[in-house]
Amino acid sequence: MKSIRVCIVGATGFAGIELCRLVLAHPCLELVMATDRKAAGTLLSEVYPSFAGACDLELSQPESDLIAQRADVAFLAVPHTASLALAPELLARGVTVLDLSADYRLHDPAVYEAWYETPHTSPELLSQTVYGLPELNRAGLRALAARRAIGETVLVAVPGCYPTATALAATPALEAGLATGDLVISDAISGVSGAGRAPSDRTHFCRANESVQAYGVASHRHTPEMEQTLSEVAGRPISVVFTPHLAPLTRGLLATVYLEAAAGVALADVRRAYEDRYANEPLVTTLPAGEMPATASVFGTARAQVGVALDDRRRKTIVASCAIDNLGKGAASQAVQCANVILGLPETQGLVAPAPLV
Amino acid sequence: MKSIRVCIVGATGFAGIELCRLVLAHPCLELVMATDRKAAGTLLSEVYPSFAGACDLELSQPESDLIAQRADVAFLAVPHTASLALAPELLARGVTVLDLSADYRLHDPAVYEAWYETPHTSPELLSQTVYGLPELNRAGLRALAARRAIGETVLVAVPGCYPTATALAATPALEAGLATGDLVISDAISGVSGAGRAPSDRTHFCRANESVQAYGVASHRHTPEMEQTLSEVAGRPISVVFTPHLAPLTRGLLATVYLEAAAGVALADVRRAYEDRYANEPLVTTLPAGEMPATASVFGTARAQVGVALDDRRRKTIVASCAIDNLGKGAASQAVQCANVILGLPETQGLVAPAPLV
Amino acid sequence: MKSIRVCIVGATGFAGIELCRLVLAHPCLELVMATDRKAAGTLLSEVYPSFAGACDLELSQPESDLIAQRADVAFLAVPHTASLALAPELLARGVTVLDLSADYRLHDPAVYEAWYETPHTSPELLSQTVYGLPELNRAGLRALAARRAIGETVLVAVPGCYPTATALAATPALEAGLATGDLVISDAISGVSGAGRAPSDRTHFCRANESVQAYGVASHRHTPEMEQTLSEVAGRPISVVFTPHLAPLTRGLLATVYLEAAAGVALADVRRAYEDRYANEPLVTTLPAGEMPATASVFGTARAQVGVALDDRRRKTIVASCAIDNLGKGAASQAVQCANVILGLPETQGLVAPAPLV
Amino acid sequence: MKSIRVCIVGATGFAGIELCRLVLAHPCLELVMATDRKAAGTLLSEVYPSFAGACDLELSQPESDLIAQRADVAFLAVPHTASLALAPELLARGVTVLDLSADYRLHDPAVYEAWYETPHTSPELLSQTVYGLPELNRAGLRALAARRAIGETVLVAVPGCYPTATALAATPALEAGLATGDLVISDAISGVSGAGRAPSDRTHFCRANESVQAYGVASHRHTPEMEQTLSEVAGRPISVVFTPHLAPLTRGLLATVYLEAAAGVALADVRRAYEDRYANEPLVTTLPAGEMPATASVFGTARAQVGVALDDRRRKTIVASCAIDNLGKGAASQAVQCANVILGLPETQGLVAPAPLV
Repeated sequence: MKSIRVCIVGATGFAGIELCRLVLAHPCLELVMATDRKAAGTLLSEVYPSFAGACDLELSQPESDLIAQRADVAFLAVPHTASLALAPELLARGVTVLDLSADYRLHDPAVYEAWYETPHTSPELLSQTVYGLPELNRAGLRALAARRAIGETVLVAVPGCYPTATALAATPALEAGLATGDLVISDAISGVSGAGRAPSDRTHFCRANESVQAYGVASHRHTPEMEQTLSEVAGRPISVVFTPHLAPLTRGLLATVYLEAAAGVALADVRRAYEDRYANEPLVTTLPAGEMPATASVFGTARAQVGVALDDRRRKTIVASCAIDNLGKGAASQAVQCANVILGLPETQGLVAPAPLV
Repeated sequence: MKSIRVCIVGATGFAGIELCRLVLAHPCLELVMATDRKAAGTLLSEVYPSFAGACDLELSQPESDLIAQRADVAFLAVPHTASLALAPELLARGVTVLDLSADYRLHDPAVYEAWYETPHTSPELLSQTVYGLPELNRAGLRALAARRAIGETVLVAVPGCYPTATALAATPALEAGLATGDLVISDAISGVSGAGRAPSDRTHFCRANESVQAYGVASHRHTPEMEQTLSEVAGRPISVVFTPHLAPLTRGLLATVYLEAAAGVALADVRRAYEDRYANEPLVTTLPAGEMPATASVFGTARAQVGVALDDRRRKTIVASCAIDNLGKGAASQAVQCANVILGLPETQGLVAPAPLV
Repeated sequence: MKSIRVCIVGATGFAGIELCRLVLAHPCLELVMATDRKAAGTLLSEVYPSFAGACDLELSQPESDLIAQRADVAFLAVPHTASLALAPELLARGVTVLDLSADYRLHDPAVYEAWYETPHTSPELLSQTVYGLPELNRAGLRALAARRAIGETVLVAVPGCYPTATALAATPALEAGLATGDLVISDAISGVSGAGRAPSDRTHFCRANESVQAYGVASHRHTPEMEQTLSEVAGRPISVVFTPHLAPLTRGLLATVYLEAAAGVALADVRRAYEDRYANEPLVTTLPAGEMPATASVFGTARAQVGVALDDRRRKTIVASCAIDNLGKGAASQAVQCANVILGLPETQGLVAPAPLV
Repeated sequence: MKSIRVCIVGATGFAGIELCRLVLAHPCLELVMATDRKAAGTLLSEVYPSFAGACDLELSQPESDLIAQRADVAFLAVPHTASLALAPELLARGVTVLDLSADYRLHDPAVYEAWYETPHTSPELLSQTVYGLPELNRAGLRALAARRAIGETVLVAVPGCYPTATALAATPALEAGLATGDLVISDAISGVSGAGRAPSDRTHFCRANESVQAYGVASHRHTPEMEQTLSEVAGRPISVVFTPHLAPLTRGLLATVYLEAAAGVALADVRRAYEDRYANEPLVTTLPAGEMPATASVFGTARAQVGVALDDRRRKTIVASCAIDNLGKGAASQAVQCANVILGLPETQGLVAPAPLV
């Protein structure tokens, strides 16, 4: 049953280790390889004691020949620029690649270069890359499944955590034409795992605990990704003003978005748009009227929960809030969800468990 | 030295106990009485073991004759409507009243009645009430000091926590004419103490921990208070779209506000406006360019910290963030700061210690 | 595949909802019924929003006829005394019962009555009850499987959280004869979910956060259960001095035990005893020398991790520490592990995923 | 009034910054200098944004000539061995030294060298050093005050955090002869600030959060300090088996100690011993029968709270628990308390505020 061989590149980062956890529990995917440049040669369970007793895999170097030899599918849980080097090598060797870095998310290499301040060295891959947000782009992923079936190259750019939550919060209003204007404000709060595994002043328990703080105001690199997605959804250019915050939780991300409501829009219209949009989405739930999502409800899961309200006093504003797990629907489980589609498996396989927080 | 006698009404709520803590440490205020309807007759330290060894006061009933007999100044740390009954009685008996409830914050009783869904039973007091946000209204408080000196009635409406942080974040931009339009979006995050001391599902550790969640969207009662203050500051009607969130911290409140920037405004203009506005404010600090405030920096203190940025891409937006302690500058220490002004004491007396978190 | 029908009685308590989560994810168990006296008639997902989108079960009343009609197996996640009434009714109707309350854990009804201060109304069931700690009592559970196969009554008393961790920490030393004397000190720390779902001062976020505190010193009801188990393991009467603490985590339990080492015992002896004892246990891991377990490593899992050291200075003392999830191996997953054995399923089915914390 | 000039050496560590906070708020001590080797030349408020607006001191190099020139008193908040170099230089220049490192706590340099694995380079100072736990050694500190008054050298070794809490928990039982035998077990839990300010895997929020874990079992360097103190208190050699744990709080330390009760001891005897012992101690409170201390009750304070129980079943054991703030009574405030005594100030000056957590 565990018939598809998987390699996790960058397995010791937080998204990487979450991928390991999901693949271990997945009925059809087999974790055959996990890489980490620095920790190669040691056991995964030495880096993450939570894997002691559950997994005895030894970490390897991320060499493309070796990966191609051992694995059918590679998840790249690496920082930006690392995938620019690795993805072309793996694709050339026939490996299906799901890239969790930012390297292939932006269609326009000039935008990438402006925001990431580094040249894009494989722009030729961008046209064939599929942006892996299944709820917005399932057709694209299914087309990839078909291409894979006939032996073609398959590269998925798995979205960022903030863009995922912002897109899920804003899409129903934009698609249904309920929001006017060209501005979406996204005010988001992330758990500390979003800041990565590297120890620093900012991630020290004693600085992160009992504190919330904005960062990267007006400059966060997820901004152009959100603008690209929301502009496609709206069918017109959308500007995003984006403010991320860190809060003292390990996992979880909440994006609250503000959109100017079109004239005449009533709460019932808004609610209907959201309920209809996600009625058939197995991993996205629109909460009942009056309820807003809590990140704890999706902790450790592949799910998103969305709530929406309308401030219909003087300046009509749609306020929608989306909760995801930044390492789940914001990274690892979204990658597995994409992989399921591409591999012809049930889309939610291995991804349905409810949250272990309450 | 401890020459001014103080009664805390509602001493066992979170704002009440913080007032007790501040008054105990204050060089000129003496805590002579603390009331709680339910716990009267027991020691304060039985309700709050942190006071064991530090204070042996017994809780009393909040009877106005008794309060007037024992105390010069009363802080009312009670829910709305409770002050409607008590404040007039205390004022009639010559007690100086600082009311932390919402009962006297709104100038227009009709607005109060619409949002709080209860009649305002002492509207005649509203015209003489001073809104106690010293950084915006120091002159009003000083006038009250003069009135008190000649034996007149003194009533201060201490602002709400969200309105305080929102006002401090938005005021410099509005006063300096850098923000255009009539809309301020305030997206705020509060620690759980903001939800009060009553145990509930929402305040249970296991539900609040590892979770952030919006609540009261488009309906929170602090909204008209913010609109009243910001409209006065701007000199034109301002609408506020307000979304509060709860995050897993005990104390702390961060308000991030969004204002449309006027044409031609540059970051330097914005920074100058904020730096100048708070240059002489002892308890409000504008952080250097590029830095945004963390709630931990003001935990347990009377201080506010403000950071500001400009998103000057397509849709110019001023983004300002203000961190306060919701029980400090958002409630108890702001009340003491007002009391200091009214009583002719140095405004920051007993209020200068830096935060015990880092 | 989902062929065994399960009812969770007391589904809205913390152990109950964890059982729901595990059963939903289990390949062979089907959640057909979940009960709650107060919330009957509402959806489980209304009480636990984390189940929205994952489970649309409506809560029922815990009526034994109905349970027997719908389910093959019932997990009783109820307070003590509630099972005294319900278990006999269910057993009489042929339902296999796994009781997570304390009602059938103590072999001697007089001990139960002394510590729980209530009469034991079905002492006749005690002799056939199996204490469900598989690592200590797998044979007993397998015998139950055989009895079930021929239609006999099956009742498992699932151990308490503290007794489980204490037993797993102390057993290897006692079994191997490395500990002398008749005293085991167990100093344990639990997450707040151990205090139950009822909101109270003690479980309020603002009181539990940033605090650790001992409670129930020298009087906790898990004490006789530990003494019963450790005495059986040691083959002689063991006294337990037990101090539980609450710490600011949602889930997790750590028991650190102290045993007087027999003369001549060396660290190598101790390590060998622990490594050998758990070498073939799929859900219990002995950590390498020098490492002690962290509760985060078993958060949300069915696993236990054990570390051991020897203080071999003047007063030789074995110090062993066991980490479990109080709702997992300390309650719900242990119950499922027992059910797997009794039902003839692989013992760890549905229970192998590593922790989603790191 | 602020007449005594103070230098904090190592001001950017957690104990150092807490000293800065306490000295800033102290009516008689003036913070004239704060040092940090690496951060010298920058503002203290650049390292700790919580000091922005409250203190504009620039960090200096820890040069003894400069310190002697500017300050009357130096607090050394440095790692062990750093004080070995600095303390003699400062004493030779007439500076009163309160050393928070471990360098002068142990009377016997051989014990120091065995546990700290480094030579003690100024053993000649040990005989004149006073161990600064005022509740145990007030006479010694007063003698130092007298020596200082006539211009003699003054060196205080401020106790470690675990030894302070363990000593306060065990002392009344040992002094009153209620405990028999030669073994004290101390099982302690510390907040993460106890692990220091250096970022590491262990102090990363995502590893520390939702986790408790023992460390340094049977090998922690505070062990000989505890044995030295408890042996002096008991008047006979006492062995300590000590297990520290980390828990997810920023500040706070709880030590729960176990002592074998002498024959015939009753709970009333134990309670009387504890109540009498601390009846006149302004900063140590014995809680009423049945209550155990919570670290939140002493968060950010100079206080200790103690609770005690007797397990009087088969193996009579005294169980006592002491809560302190590891950075307060466990470090900085204890140093200030000692300084107050030595400088002839009221012992609790600047140290009486109750905790800002509840």
